[in-house]
Amino acid sequence: MNFCSHCGAPVRFAIPMDDDRPRYLCDNCGTIHYQNPRIVAGSLPIMADRVLLCRRAITPREGYWTLPAGFMENGETTREAAIRETREEACAEIEVGGLYTLVDLPHINQVYMIYLARLAPQREPAFAAGPESLEVRLFSEAEIPWASLAFSTVTLTLEHFFADRRHDGLAGDRALADYPLHDGVIRRW
Amino acid sequence: MNFCSHCGAPVRFAIPMDDDRPRYLCDNCGTIHYQNPRIVAGSLPIMADRVLLCRRAITPREGYWTLPAGFMENGETTREAAIRETREEACAEIEVGGLYTLVDLPHINQVYMIYLARLAPQREPAFAAGPESLEVRLFSEAEIPWASLAFSTVTLTLEHFFADRRHDGLAGDRALADYPLHDGVIRRW
Ligand SMILES: [Zn+2]
Ligand SMILES: [Zn+2]
Repeated sequence: MNFCSHCGAPVRFAIPMDDDRPRYLCDNCGTIHYQNPRIVAGSLPIMADRVLLCRRAITPREGYWTLPAGFMENGETTREAAIRETREEACAEIEVGGLYTLVDLPHINQVYMIYLARLAPQREPAFAAGPESLEVRLFSEAEIPWASLAFSTVTLTLEHFFADRRHDGLAGDRALADYPLHDGVIRRW
Repeated sequence: MNFCSHCGAPVRFAIPMDDDRPRYLCDNCGTIHYQNPRIVAGSLPIMADRVLLCRRAITPREGYWTLPAGFMENGETTREAAIRETREEACAEIEVGGLYTLVDLPHINQVYMIYLARLAPQREPAFAAGPESLEVRLFSEAEIPWASLAFSTVTLTLEHFFADRRHDGLAGDRALADYPLHDGVIRRW
């Protein structure tokens, strides 16, 4: 940030009075420009014992596999953001369950919120590559390309999911709402 | 937003190519200025069967009772934000449990994340009014000033907590980690 978005004057980076951390300050109009973390919302779409992953067509991590997720927009809920991202990146409609992983990434000012979801069965084809994906497909646990996952948040979410499934044993058909929330902090990629 | 924070030129509000919603665009340097929801992080501090509330010394809702909560800052985790806000507003140290309420407020572009917490018993006095509070005190369920709560997110969180407590019956000493996550959407205040 170099200029005040309100009045156009140059800003300076300093600690305001009655505050304890530096902000971008405009001496011309008095605006303090706060900067806050952003939410990355997405889904872990499942179909029986398989999960849906997208191979990224864009940087960063082009060519690597990820869950459908992206920056939450103003005016939507976290669930709506997860549904929208899944529709955009995987052309898939989902039934959304509970929040499944909540991951703080303080070094990049992001909070990941991944909802567990079931692929809606009524649509054929159920999924396809959106403009930001090279390829979209279902993976069983044995097929997961662990070394080619795009982000540590994706690895963490998949590890929790397959651990929860193993814990169920052969019964293995837990309702979406019965999976627990897992939270964590990743401080470096 | 009137001016580009990068180059200082005037911005216009229009839908960029390959996008589907309007953004602030700078024709001079090409920057697209995205705007995203903010996280309000806080805690529900409990001590036995009582909860800690703060009476607000600042607008909005000055004089009304609230939970310690505020905008999450860059560089911190959601739990760290909850601890910091509790320290700032209630001068209280807490042991933080799990995420307890997650509330989307899409009409004001906010996501509330309230962590269940226990007041750390070792500090005396355990709490006091910080600069943004007029008064801080513990309330049993019968004492909650329902008509004088500052925000609907606070009402919702307290309703869930006392319902969870009633569900426990006389046993009533659930571990912090054993409370479920409650989520919801509030579309108007
Ligand atoms: Zn200014
Ligand atoms: Zn510009």
